[in-house]
This record gives sequence, structure tokens and C-alpha cells, in this order.
Amino acid sequence: SLDWLRSGMDASSAWICVFLVGLACGVCASVLDIGTAWLIDLRDGVCSKGFWFNREQCCWGSNQTTFDGQYECPQWMTWSVILGHLPNDAGAYVIQYLMFVVWAVIFSWMAATLVRVFAPYASGSGIPEIKTILSGFIIRGYLGKWTLLIKIISLIFIVSSGVNVGKEGPMIHIAACCGNFFAYLFPKYGNNEAKKREIHSAAAAAGISVAFGAPIAGVLFSLEEISYYFPLKTLYRSFFCALVAAFVVRSINPFGNDHLTMFFVEVRSPWFFLELIPFIFLGVFGGVIGVVFIRLNAWFCKLRKTTRLGQYPIMEVVAMGFVTALISYPNPYTREDNSSLIARLFHDCGPADNSALCDYNRTYTSVTAAFAKAEPGPGVKQAMWQLFLAVIVKFVLSIMSVGMKIPAGVFIPNMVVGAMVGRMVGVGMEQLSTTYSEAALFVTACGTTARCVTPGLYAVIGAAAVMGGVTRITISMVVIMVEVTGGLQYIVPLMAAVMTSKWVGDILMKEGIYELLINMNGYPFLDNKLDFHHTTVAADVMRPRPTEKDPLWALPQDSMTVEELEHVVHSGPNGFPIVVSRENQYLVGFVLRKELQVALEASRHPNSGIVSSSRVYFVEHCTTNDYIGPKPLVLSSMVDYAPITIIDQTPMETVIDLFRKMGLRQTLVTHKGRLLGIITKKDVLKHIKEMDHVDSGSVGFN
Amino acid sequence: SLDWLRSGMDASSAWICVFLVGLACGVCASVLDIGTAWLIDLRDGVCSKGFWFNREQCCWGSNQTTFDGQYECPQWMTWSVILGHLPNDAGAYVIQYLMFVVWAVIFSWMAATLVRVFAPYASGSGIPEIKTILSGFIIRGYLGKWTLLIKIISLIFIVSSGVNVGKEGPMIHIAACCGNFFAYLFPKYGNNEAKKREIHSAAAAAGISVAFGAPIAGVLFSLEEISYYFPLKTLYRSFFCALVAAFVVRSINPFGNDHLTMFFVEVRSPWFFLELIPFIFLGVFGGVIGVVFIRLNAWFCKLRKTTRLGQYPIMEVVAMGFVTALISYPNPYTREDNSSLIARLFHDCGPADNSALCDYNRTYTSVTAAFAKAEPGPGVKQAMWQLFLAVIVKFVLSIMSVGMKIPAGVFIPNMVVGAMVGRMVGVGMEQLSTTYSEAALFVTACGTTARCVTPGLYAVIGAAAVMGGVTRITISMVVIMVEVTGGLQYIVPLMAAVMTSKWVGDILMKEGIYELLINMNGYPFLDNKLDFHHTTVAADVMRPRPTEKDPLWALPQDSMTVEELEHVVHSGPNGFPIVVSRENQYLVGFVLRKELQVALEASRHPNSGIVSSSRVYFVEHCTTNDYIGPKPLVLSSMVDYAPITIIDQTPMETVIDLFRKMGLRQTLVTHKGRLLGIITKKDVLKHIKEMDHVDSGSVGFN
Repeated sequence: SLDWLRSGMDASSAWICVFLVGLACGVCASVLDIGTAWLIDLRDGVCSKGFWFNREQCCWGSNQTTFDGQYECPQWMTWSVILGHLPNDAGAYVIQYLMFVVWAVIFSWMAATLVRVFAPYASGSGIPEIKTILSGFIIRGYLGKWTLLIKIISLIFIVSSGVNVGKEGPMIHIAACCGNFFAYLFPKYGNNEAKKREIHSAAAAAGISVAFGAPIAGVLFSLEEISYYFPLKTLYRSFFCALVAAFVVRSINPFGNDHLTMFFVEVRSPWFFLELIPFIFLGVFGGVIGVVFIRLNAWFCKLRKTTRLGQYPIMEVVAMGFVTALISYPNPYTREDNSSLIARLFHDCGPADNSALCDYNRTYTSVTAAFAKAEPGPGVKQAMWQLFLAVIVKFVLSIMSVGMKIPAGVFIPNMVVGAMVGRMVGVGMEQLSTTYSEAALFVTACGTTARCVTPGLYAVIGAAAVMGGVTRITISMVVIMVEVTGGLQYIVPLMAAVMTSKWVGDILMKEGIYELLINMNGYPFLDNKLDFHHTTVAADVMRPRPTEKDPLWALPQDSMTVEELEHVVHSGPNGFPIVVSRENQYLVGFVLRKELQVALEASRHPNSGIVSSSRVYFVEHCTTNDYIGPKPLVLSSMVDYAPITIIDQTPMETVIDLFRKMGLRQTLVTHKGRLLGIITKKDVLKHIKEMDHVDSGSVGFN
Repeated sequence: SLDWLRSGMDASSAWICVFLVGLACGVCASVLDIGTAWLIDLRDGVCSKGFWFNREQCCWGSNQTTFDGQYECPQWMTWSVILGHLPNDAGAYVIQYLMFVVWAVIFSWMAATLVRVFAPYASGSGIPEIKTILSGFIIRGYLGKWTLLIKIISLIFIVSSGVNVGKEGPMIHIAACCGNFFAYLFPKYGNNEAKKREIHSAAAAAGISVAFGAPIAGVLFSLEEISYYFPLKTLYRSFFCALVAAFVVRSINPFGNDHLTMFFVEVRSPWFFLELIPFIFLGVFGGVIGVVFIRLNAWFCKLRKTTRLGQYPIMEVVAMGFVTALISYPNPYTREDNSSLIARLFHDCGPADNSALCDYNRTYTSVTAAFAKAEPGPGVKQAMWQLFLAVIVKFVLSIMSVGMKIPAGVFIPNMVVGAMVGRMVGVGMEQLSTTYSEAALFVTACGTTARCVTPGLYAVIGAAAVMGGVTRITISMVVIMVEVTGGLQYIVPLMAAVMTSKWVGDILMKEGIYELLINMNGYPFLDNKLDFHHTTVAADVMRPRPTEKDPLWALPQDSMTVEELEHVVHSGPNGFPIVVSRENQYLVGFVLRKELQVALEASRHPNSGIVSSSRVYFVEHCTTNDYIGPKPLVLSSMVDYAPITIIDQTPMETVIDLFRKMGLRQTLVTHKGRLLGIITKKDVLKHIKEMDHVDSGSVGFN
């Protein structure tokens, strides 16, 4: 019964931990959303009721509020109004433009400085690093409290500055930092790296859950992209964690509506079968543009490393903030922040909608035909031009922005590009269906009365396709889009586009952006998505090679002196197999160099009685009374007597499988019981690269 | 480049295969749906336009059609009308009742006979068996074409007969059969059991996808419950397969509406925070009722095995069909087929709804207050009584029906019980909120105008909770309910209820229904959900035990005669380790008994030159010219020279992990290179049961 209680406590500690992590993620995300919303509005003006109100909050209480894409009320004072200009004169435009640029420079400087001075680890999205950490590698301080704090603050600044980066990817890093923090409150998790990774997997789910308001997609993203090993236990906890986080965000309600969804799309028009053709076209486009993005971004990152550009990280960010603001202000689609723009593009034109995108000359002859004939007005034509320019600007800016020394995600910048292209394709299709509304094709598909092409849906599909092309995620991408739009009936078109984009992307370039970044940084990541098809065996990979005459660094179990051991430990590898004797190389166990160093240092204490000629025992040793000679050093407690071993003829496919599934760092190779060599994770990674004819020198870690 | 082409062909063969499997699943599900709909209506009457029309199709073309819960039109002739009675007199009731019972008996007899005579494997849901197959065990013929055909036909009959079993679980078996069929078209999959399992995992996803019209839930169900090993490759293919299947069903459109969802719920009322209390109560109820169901069902199955009941499987089914029909007809909620009943319970009362469940005396004082005050009319009170009786009847019948020798799932019967209880709780809550509508609690939660309790939502939650209690699935359960109702905003309440029901269920009884059935049938299934916490090591489990004096069945590599080998093969275990020599037990390889038998039989051919005293070589052997003696038997080609080995001090936790993750059937235990013993999967299973103090004799397989 005590056993039952203990196991109950044990199990619930995990639940409590992920509950706290979820709570913290929810709070972080809300702080991020509220802070960003406030700073973005600060670029436009301030609230006369109090500078801490953002535009929407400022106008909530007012009865003079009007809504036209954004809230307008007298309490909200733009900078030009404060400086005494009328809202619409030329001077006001100049002042607003100027303030827009000035704030952008200030914000981007703040973000870059914070990262540079306090937490260099806060830069980037953090996803490649977290993938590597979850595969078993330790990067000290990467998930620290300091990184967490700085990442949140600088993320608020950089997103508000308008620099074309996303805040969704970094949320995963923020969530993982929260996970790390709470794991230390529970000794079971804090003291065990493998168990801590379970918490990180759950935290990653919570990160995506709050980033997109999509708990199910969060779990799937953690499973598909982030986590290395995802047992069912982790699945349940991830789900719980994601849910708590989503619930916290919903309760704090930073999006200001009752839906848990970021880009809730009200209209639910059905789609017809033939639309799959443009959807698949968008998928192909997404795959191609994704690869172009990855390649150009990688080229730019290399440029940054090799030229003088990389020596001025703060200057670079500030310059980017300046240029971005300067280019973005004139075009309404580049001026608007990415999230609002996506929401606008996803949204369908209602009858009351009078934005440029919805400026149709509708023939209101009857209620049912209201939407049937929609001649585009000048607003739509202008919007198409502006969107086209905005696509180019945003795409180029995102290629240059992602990779700077600031927190930066690739999700939203690519989503925006996809959504704009999708919307344009959608408007094109809509015009096609209106112009040829009598064509047999459209008559069978739409009937004559109903409107049948929804440009907003094309924007959704386009966004998913480009994101899919860049990241190569599939099922979680579809679920993210379903959850953010609430459109369950769009699963099939989304799936068709995302699968196409993945296939096209995979053909053009094997790696997604995260794998590329992992490779570029030389992280020791053993990709569990790639198949290994070669016929090599363990004997071809182990060190020393059978043909080489290199020595095998094996320690005899009871015939070494302390002096000899010190010499070996000083110059040898990170771990040593223990064998029966030099002549009889039968495996006894495995010991880490790190632990030997600690033990040797302790033995050097004058009172220990250990001298240079003391014998070292790696097995249990009983000192009998008639024992002559100095006191022996017994190190049996630090030997792993059950290392995983393989036989030299084991195919490398199986060996790689073992490394992946059992999370090994090394394995010992035997032949008829005799120890032949050792294979480390580094050897495996090098071998895979060699087999793929890639330069294997880039695998660099200790 | 040829390599690229080959790998491309190789990869696409998998996609083509799962595409075909998805197609086949979609067709099977449509046949099942159409057949069931037709036979269910046949119990009521026939269509005068043609006997092959079901009620809905019969009334489609008619302009006299009315819809009141079901379609009514003059073309549809009930049996009483055919026999000359007016629709509503007492004689008509008797005739309809009689026909209802007669058809039930005929259908259940058909179903039971088909299974008994043609395909005994078609009985049950098949989920425990498929779980076992996916864990690496082979049950010949279980996924055969014959099983497939009979399962579909008898499933149509048994569901139409009204016997309280579901058709969703068996769809997974049907899908797996489709998977097996198409796997044989691709040699890569047909000839490799491990690869075939990848197809089965994808097929299982398609099965749930078509059973519930829920592709994402299908993939998650395959991941959470069915599959043993689910790499990302399988995830992508499962998703594709599930999607193709769902698309086929949508195109054939057996549900007759444009939504992909079975129980599409139109009304989308928000829920308020305090409602979580009744939701969690439903979760507790679901957990308890789930365990009660499992225990009683297991007790009944044992009764069937040990008493004479089991000797008359056909009689039992027919009797059950008779009794079910007899009891079910008078109560409208038991008379209705389960799917329609669930749809009715999930559905909210609209203003135009005049069924008994929606018989409220509403005060239509204003539009907004229309729903605020809803006194229940006599219809609601009557409906509550009938529902209460229906819960008891359906629950008892499902306990007795599941486990008979017919295709039978547990999903829908339990869903129906949960939905009925949930609806009752929902109506109770609704009354509470109307009666005390001025109470501070409800005023803050609902305001005064809006209606705030939705009984239909409670039915959804109740259904999920009971299903969760029985099967212990969580995330896929939530996603199933979200996809079947289209209610994305109900994720949080669903999750709260399902998690509660799983926790309560797990406390009361460790196993879900599938694990229990696996244990009861003694399948060799190494559960990957359970943790192993004991401190035993490999040496405690291997055979022979170190303390025992049993011999280790190891074969020397080059010092045995054919006669000796024949003797050993005749009486030994299923596999033999090969060692250097009897004195020097260093491991060389591993050979299966089955293969040795084949080789020995071949060697007995008179022309082979092999005699009883021939030496047997398990290693490469060169016959030199000066070799004296009979021709040796060289068996090196059948030896696995790279078996997985472990060291005797390896903790059993690691060993179990190895068995699960690497899909091992046995592993060899060594100590300092010397072979000590062998651990088979059976030994591991027995050891786990011994440690859990369960009778280990029930693990029975060859």
C-alpha cells in the first residue's frame, strides 16, 4: 500500500509539473501578446486616458468609437494630433511616417542590445537547438531563467519594431525554458536529463498551443517536429500541458474575443472538387518558395559569418529596423503588423466590408444573387498591386531578418507571404468564376445563385503551403490551420496543399529549415526521419578500424597502476571500456573519463594512502591480510557493468536504430565475446554523412 | 541517378499502397453504411418504388415528404400498411412490433451463421488481435480476404438486427484486412512482416477515419491505441491513407449531407467556466461505468467459456437478437438505431423542434428571452423517464452482446449510454439555470438574456467520458468527438472529462478493455504503456538460471555431427545460440530451429553425401584436399552472426525497453564475453506478470 502511495505521488508529480509549466507558458504568452499589442500601437500614438492602454483598450469605454479595420476614437491620439496637425493633412502623414521609423529604430536597438548584452542564447527561434537537446545533447544555460526573461522582452521589442520575424517559433524556446525551470522543483526530473526531456516535450506542445491558440496542433507539432522520443506517457502530459496553457491564455484573453482562435474565420463556404487544382498549385508554389527561402536564408547567414557584416550584430538589427520601417510605411499591407494582416487576408468579404480588398461593384439585384456577380472595383485592383509589391518586400526582408542576433521565428513571415499569394490566386479564381459563370464547369460546381469561390480560403491554403515548404511539417501544419481558422471542413484541401508542398520541397532539397540550421551549426543530431539504406556493418565504423593499427583504449580490470591510469585519462577519449586483461580482451564494463578524473583527483589527497604505484581495481576487490604493497584504488562503484554491446557484423541500419531508439552515446563492438572497438554517436553521424557524400568535418562537438 | 530513381520508386510504392488501402477502406465503409441503412429501414417497411431504396432515398423524389425525426412519404410503405392497416391503429402497432422482432431474429441468425461457418476470426472487434499483430506476433489468416468479406456482411446484419454492438471497432479490422490484401501486391511489403505492419498502422487510421468520418482522430487513434511502433514515416502515410478513405466516403456520401461529420451539431453555444463541475462529474461517472462495463463483460465472457452457454454460439446470438428486439420496441429511445439516437441526443433543441425531448413551454416574450425561461413540458418529463430506462436496458444488453461470436465493437454502445446520461444531466443543469436564473452564479455566467446551458453538449461530453473509461484513450477520443460534432470550442470541456474518466478508470482498474481482452486471450503482447519499476536484472530472468543446473542449448560452431544435431533439434527450443566450442562458450551467432529442420531434411536426401557422422559447420569451412572423413554439412548461410546481446547485469527495465523498441523475440545474455543464457519475449512477459503478482501461467503461445 505504501508502494501504491509512492507510485501515486511519483506519477502525480509529473502532472503537477506539467500543470505548472502550462500555467507559466500561458502567462508568458499573454505577457507577450499584451506587450506587443501595446508597443505596436505606441508607434501610432498614445491613449489620453493613460499611456499604458493600447488602442483597442483605449477605445473600449468610449461611445464615440468607430471600427474600420481598426478602432478609432477621440481618446486615442496619434502623434500628429498631439503635435497639432489635423488627421489627414500632408504634415500629419510625414509626422506619422517619421514616428513609425523612429520607434522602429528604438525598438530594434532595444531588442538587439538586450540579446547581445544579457543573453546571446535568446537569439533565433531556438527550435534547432531544442530538437538537438531533446535528442540527448546538453547545451548548458540554453534553457536558463535569464534566457527566458530576455527572450520574452526582446521578442516584444523586435516584433513591435516591425522587423519581419515571427514570435511563434521563439514561444517554443520560451516554453522549454519554463519547463526547465519547473523541472528543477521536482528532483525526479531536475536530476535526470532523460526525464527532464519528457517535460521539455510537453512544454514544446504548450508553446505551440499558446502561440497559435491550438492545443491539439501543439501536441502534434511536438510529436512531429520537436521531440525525439515521444512515448504515450509524454503524449498525455503534453496534451494536458498544452490544454492548461491554452486555458490560461483564454482566461486572460489577450486576443479580445471569446474564441480560442487567432484568426477565427466566420464564413464557412463549402469548396468544390475542381478547386483542388488551384490548391495543389498553391502547394507546388509553397514547396518551391520554401526551398528558395531556405537556400537564400542559408546563403545570407553564411555571408554574415564570413564577411564583416557579422561583426556588428546590433548595427545590423537597427539598420534592418530602419529600412523595414522606411519601406513598409507607404504600402498598407506592409505597414500593418503580420498577425492583423493574416487575419485580414483569411477573412472573407462580407456585404458591410468596405476595405480596399472588398471593393466590389456588386449587383444587388436579389438577395441570392448579391454575391454572384462581383466586378472588382478600383480598390481591388489597387489592393492586388499593393499585395504583389508587399509579397516581394516581405519575402526579401524575411530572408534577411531571420538569422540576425534577435529572437526570430520563420512561421509568421512565411505564413504572410503564403496568405498574400493565396489571396491573389483566390481573387483570380473568383473573377474566373464570375466572368465565366455560365461555363459548364462553374455551373455544375456552383449552381447559378451561390457564390462559390472564397478568396479567404485560398489565403489559408497558401499560408499553410508556404509554411509546409519551409518547415516540412504536415499533419501538425494542417491541424494548426484548422484550429486557427476553426474550419474543420477544410482538412482535405489543406492536406492536399501541404502534402504537395512537402513532396515538392523534399524533391528540391532534402532538409527543412530546422535540419539545415542543425547541420550548419554542426549540432550532433541523429535525424530520426531519414532512412539509412547502405549495407555497411559495425566493423566498418568502429574505432579502431580492424585494418588500422591504432590502439584500443581499453583498461584492464585489475592490472594498472594509478600512474598509468593518470596518463591514459590525460590523453584518452571520453570513455573507456574495461576488459579482463590486456591479453584477454573480454568486456567487463565501461567507465567515463569524467568520473575517473574526479576519482583520481580525490585519490591524490595525502591522507588517502594512494600512491603512484597503487594498483587500480575496476572490480570488487577484497584486501586480504597477507596483501603486500601500497593500498589499492578500487573504482568499481563508477563502472557501468551493463553497457550496450553489439557484434561486429551487425548492420549499421540496426546500429543506427539502436542509437536512436535507446538514446545511446556510444556502444561497444565485440567479436566472439572479445572487445574489438567502440562506436560513438559522432562516429555514426560522420558515417551517415560520408555515405551521403557530404563533408563530414562539420560534425563538431565534444 | 539510378539510385535516386530506385529510391523514388521504392518510396512511392508505399504511397501507392496506402492510397489503394484508403480507397478500399472508403468503399468498404460506404458499403457498410448503405447496407446497414437499408436493412434497418427494411425492419419498418419497404419502398414502393423499389425494394432496394431505403426510407430516405425512397422519399427524396417525393413532393409529399415530411420530416419529423425521420422522413415520411406515401411511397414508403410500412409492413402494417402493406397488410392493410391504418398507420395508427392498435393492429398496426402489433404488426410493426412483430416484424421488428422477426427481422431481428433473421438478421442475427444470418450474422452468427456466417461467422460460425465461414470465418470464426470475423468475431469481436479485432482490436486486441490487431494490437498483438502490430507488436510483432503473427496470427495466420486473421487478416485474410475471407475474414474481410464475412466480417463486412455479418456486421451489416448484426448492426441492423438491433443487437447492441458497434460497427466502428470492427472497421479497424476490416481496414487492416484491406491493408493486408494490398500489401501482397507490393513485394517490399508482402514479404516483410515488419514492413507490412507499417501498412497495417496506416490502415487502422483509415478504419477510424471512415468509421467516424474523422481523419485526424484516425491517425491519433492508430498512434495512441493500435500501433506499437509509430515512426514519422508511418505518421505521414497514415494521414494520407486516412484522408483518401475519408474522401472516398465523402464522395459516395452515405450520410447524405455535405459535412464529413457523422453527428454534425449546428448550434455552437459557448460554455461557461462553472459548467466544468458537471463535466468533471460526467468524467468520474464515465470512469466508473467504464470499469463496471469491463468487469461485468469479462465476467460474462468467462461464464460463456466455462458454462454450456458457449456451446451454442448461434443460438445465443439469435436469442439475444430476439430479446433485444422484444425489449427495445416499446421505448422509442431503445427502438431507434444507435447512430440516429446519438445524433438526436447531441442535437440541440431549436425553436421548430417538436420531439418529446424538446417539449418545452417556452415564454416567447421577446426574441432574446425566447430561450431564457424554459419550463419542461410533459414531453421532456416522459423523455427523461424513457431515457433512464433506456440507459439501463442498453447498458445490460451491451454487456451481454459484446463478446458473442459476431463482429462487435464497444464504441457506439458505450457512447450511447454516455450520451443518454449526459443529456439527462444536461437537462437537469438547464432546469437548475432556469429555476435559479436570478441567482448570482447564473447571472454572472449567463447574463439574463442568453440561454446558457446546452443539454446537447452534455450528451457529447458524456459519450466521450464513458468511451474514455472503457478504452482509456484520451487525445484521440477528444479529437474524435471534435471531428464528429465539428465543435472545436469544446476541446477544453471534452479534455477535462476524458482525462478525469481515464484517471478514475486507471485507479479502479489498471487495464482498459483491450488490454484485458489481450490478457484473457493470453496473447504475447508486451504493453508499451506500462512502466517497469522493479530492480531485477537480466541474470534473474534468463534461462537457464545461474542457480539451476539446466543445460544451455548452445551449439558448438564446428564440433557436432549431423546425428547429434538432429537429436538436439528434435527436443530443443525454437532457437539456438552458436558458440566457439562446448568448453569455450563465446558467442558466434544464433540460428532458428525451423531453419535447421529444413536444412537437415534436405541433407537427408541420398544424393547429398551427408551421413549421420558428417561434421556440422556453422562457420565458413574450406574443405582442403587432405580432408579425411564424410562430407561436412555447412550451415553458415542460415546463421545470424549479429544477434542482439546484453550483459547479465543489465537492468530488466533496459531489457524490456530493448524488446519493445527493437521488436526483439529473444536476446542472448553474456558475461565477460561468455554466453550465459537466453531471454525470450515469453520470459519477459512471464517476469512482468510475476513481478505484478499475477498468475503467469496465462501467457500462452508457441
